[in-house]
Formats: sequence, C-alpha cells, structure tokens
Amino acid sequence: MLVNGEQRDTVAIMDRGFQYGDGLFETIEVRANQPIFLQQHLKRLNADSQRLYLPKLDLDLLRSEIQQLCQNAGHAVLKIIITRGSGGRGYRQPDVIQPTRILSLHPFPDYPQSYYSDGIVARVCQTRLGLNPDLAGMKHLNRLEQVMARAEWNDAAIQEGIMLDFNGRVIEGTMTNLFYVKNGELFTAPLNLCGIAGILRGWVFEQMPVMEHDFFIDDLCDADEIFVCNSVIGIWGIRELNGQIYSANKITQNLQLALENEKQKQVTYAI
Amino acid sequence: MLVNGEQRDTVAIMDRGFQYGDGLFETIEVRANQPIFLQQHLKRLNADSQRLYLPKLDLDLLRSEIQQLCQNAGHAVLKIIITRGSGGRGYRQPDVIQPTRILSLHPFPDYPQSYYSDGIVARVCQTRLGLNPDLAGMKHLNRLEQVMARAEWNDAAIQEGIMLDFNGRVIEGTMTNLFYVKNGELFTAPLNLCGIAGILRGWVFEQMPVMEHDFFIDDLCDADEIFVCNSVIGIWGIRELNGQIYSANKITQNLQLALENEKQKQVTYAI
Repeated sequence: MLVNGEQRDTVAIMDRGFQYGDGLFETIEVRANQPIFLQQHLKRLNADSQRLYLPKLDLDLLRSEIQQLCQNAGHAVLKIIITRGSGGRGYRQPDVIQPTRILSLHPFPDYPQSYYSDGIVARVCQTRLGLNPDLAGMKHLNRLEQVMARAEWNDAAIQEGIMLDFNGRVIEGTMTNLFYVKNGELFTAPLNLCGIAGILRGWVFEQMPVMEHDFFIDDLCDADEIFVCNSVIGIWGIRELNGQIYSANKITQNLQLALENEKQKQVTYAI
Repeated sequence: MLVNGEQRDTVAIMDRGFQYGDGLFETIEVRANQPIFLQQHLKRLNADSQRLYLPKLDLDLLRSEIQQLCQNAGHAVLKIIITRGSGGRGYRQPDVIQPTRILSLHPFPDYPQSYYSDGIVARVCQTRLGLNPDLAGMKHLNRLEQVMARAEWNDAAIQEGIMLDFNGRVIEGTMTNLFYVKNGELFTAPLNLCGIAGILRGWVFEQMPVMEHDFFIDDLCDADEIFVCNSVIGIWGIRELNGQIYSANKITQNLQLALENEKQKQVTYAI
C-alpha cells in the first residue's frame, strides 16, 4: 500500500476519511500489470473530487504511483482512496486541505467461470438506498447502505443483492449496476437521486442504446435478460432472481464478449 | 488516544470504518474529569451497535477506559468511535468481527458566552438530508451530508446551518438538533427517516412535553423561539435566521438553566 507515496498500512485516526467517510474511492481491475479503464476511473475520481470540493487532484502523480504499484501486479485489484486528509474535530473543513491519497493492491477474486457462462443467483434486499441528489452517482466512502444490504444474507449460493430506493424503484446491486433487456431493448435506472455511476455502466452505454427509466421489481419479472456489472467482476447475467429463472442471455453474452475484447486490447496496446 | 486499549493515533487502512464509514461515534462533554450523560451515550452506542449488527459492546471495558482517559482531562471533549474492524475488500462483513474501539480526548471549544446569553446566527443549508429509515437516528460514520452542508459557508458570524430533508422538511442543524417554541409549546422534527437522535434532544424530551411533527422553514418564521442543542455546545438560542430576529428566549433560558444544574449535579455526585 502507498499512503501519500510512502509504504504504510495505517492512516491517522483524525483523517476525515475515517472520522466522516469524507472521501472517494475507485476499484480497478489490473490485468497483466495494466489497470483497465484507467482513464475513465481517473476522470470520475477527478469529477467527484470537484463535487466534494476537494483540492484538484495531481493526476500525473497518481498515474506514476499507479504504474509503480502495478508493474508486477499481474492480475489484481487496485483500490484508490482519496480523502480530505486530517482536520480538527467537527464537520467544518480545515482551511488548508491536504488530501490523503491511498493506493492498495488486492488479490483478484477467484470467481467461478459459471458466473460468466451460466449467470448468478440474486435476491432482493430489504435495505433501501436513501435519496440524495447531492451525493448520488459518486463513489464516496459513505457506504453503510451497501454494508447493511450485504449483511442481509450469508448464503454462498447467492452472489448479489438488488437494492431498491426509498420509493421502491430498482436501482442497482450492492456492488454492481443493473441492466435488463426487454424485446431487444436495454434499460437501466437513472442515478440522479441515488446509486453509483459505475465505469462499466458507462462503458455499456457506449456499446448500444440504453434507456434510463424508473422501474420496479415487477418489470424485472417481465424481463428477458438481466445482468449486473462492475469493474472487477465484469458482466454477470442473472439466471435466477426470487426463484424465477432467466434463460435468455444473448445481449448479455454479446456485451461480455465485447468487454473481453476491450480488455484484451487495453492489455495489448498498453505502453 | 486509545485504540483497543493501546496508545496509538493511527488505524489500519483496511479498517471498515475507513473503507466504508462502517461504524458509530459518540461525542461527550467532559467536565471536571466527568463524562456528562455517560449512561445515555453508552446506551445509544449499544442500541445503534445492535442496529448495525455489530458484536455486543463490552460496556465495562469501555467504562474503565473512559475513566482512565478522563481522570485528568478537566474540561474536554471525549470522542468514542466503534467500527466493524478490519476485513477483506468488499461490503460483506468478515465471518469473525473484531470491532475497533477508539477513545480520544480533544480540547473543549472556546465558545463565546454570548452564544448562550444572546443566541447565535443561523442559515439554511442547500445540502439536503437523504431519506433512509434503515440508518435514521443513528450517529454513524457516514457523515458526508453534514460535511457538504458545513462547507456551504465560511462566515465566522454564522454558527450553525439548518438542514432540510429531501422533501423540504426542517430536520436539524449540521451538528445539532433543533427545537422551536410557538405559543408556549415545544416542537421538533421526527427522526424516523433521517437525522441524528441526539442525547441532548432526548434530555429535552424529559424536561417538558415536546410535539414531534413535520414542519417547514415557514413554521420557523412564525416561531417565538428557536434553539439548537448537542452534547458539546449544550443549548444555544437562535437570535437570527435568514435575517429574521428572534428576541424571545424564555423557554430556551429555562432549559439552559436546567441543563447547567443537571451537569453540575453529575459533576458533584460523580463517583
């Protein structure tokens, strides 16, 4: 782990990331030492920093540290955390903000191949996503809703939980964005009131037309295909949700193939 | 600072308090080495721990560490943080949870006497409180809404910002609970959808009848008195909000006096 460029595995207790969750993170697949979709991750980190009134990121420094950390990483997960740094007690920001910058490498999870080929089993969570346009879309460090939702089940046969918002609209998975297919068209939830605007979600929007609209569990019951995605798992179809079986996966498979090609391209043409 | 009983000022980066804001905190006034309303703070911490599925707190251990830390503290602020401890990457809780327990002492803020006698100036924040019954009322570590709200102003003449919820209802201050008086009756917002159920708020409920109801900024314009409270500031009347002056403060002053008596009693009869 690198904390502001130094090898450490601790952070100050007075760091506002710890005191208030006052910061952001990115989770990135590293494949053959190459961070995949790095430009997109850094772009989001930069944009979210501005929304949180954090000082401008030094992206060159960040890129150089990422390169340093990943040079022998092989297949791994790179996590970046940026916080508002240490400050006095109280919500007020310090007059001079010195952000904390943390990079860490983690083993790539050993997901069974069947999650990709056959799909996963999902459930619907009781824990709801609160509505807050000021924070919606950001990958910030306030993640208790996801922790509470993920704590609802302990059955290893279930790989993801679907989260509704306060008004019952389907938004996303605990760790993924969610799409569904109906009559060849692709749909997902708008993220203006809650949810995290994932990098893979953005990538899917570039592959084919996606309609953002409010929808409910009933709409998922009528769907032809459902899939979830994030930067680490890639794309998993859902083969079973609440006991219902989804056997179609044509669009899901096409996107999985395109994603695999994109990742191979990034690994091959990396500098 | 004490981290799990040891003097340290850092915490593991993999601590879930840092990774996800997965934990709780309490902020307690220490007066003449005595933590004020300690029973109430520990009771809330215990109750919120259960809501977050944290392991049962060892309250005897916590009390003994608090006594150790406060024995020469004089007038200070004691902060307690409890997190879900370190765990692997991902929202899923570790199978064995070993909570992190942090106690820290901070100087008591040097508030001018006029905040108590004449009241403070407050403003209305743009940042809204999201709605989430699963987290409402708890003093958890996901506090970005408060950080964003407090970042809205930098004018030292303004001491507190009033926060509305997603639907425009008045809920609380960025660091306080809020009450208003109309025709001798006391009102405050229900906290079933958002907000923090403060210890001082609970104490006010024990002093006189309080009506919990939904209200809006217009209701505050019509109010006779408004005050805010928390465990560190005690009770401050609001003398000016959005340019409007509030000159009455009879009930506010009565509660301030009663609170001062209660604190003196706790200091005098402390063991």
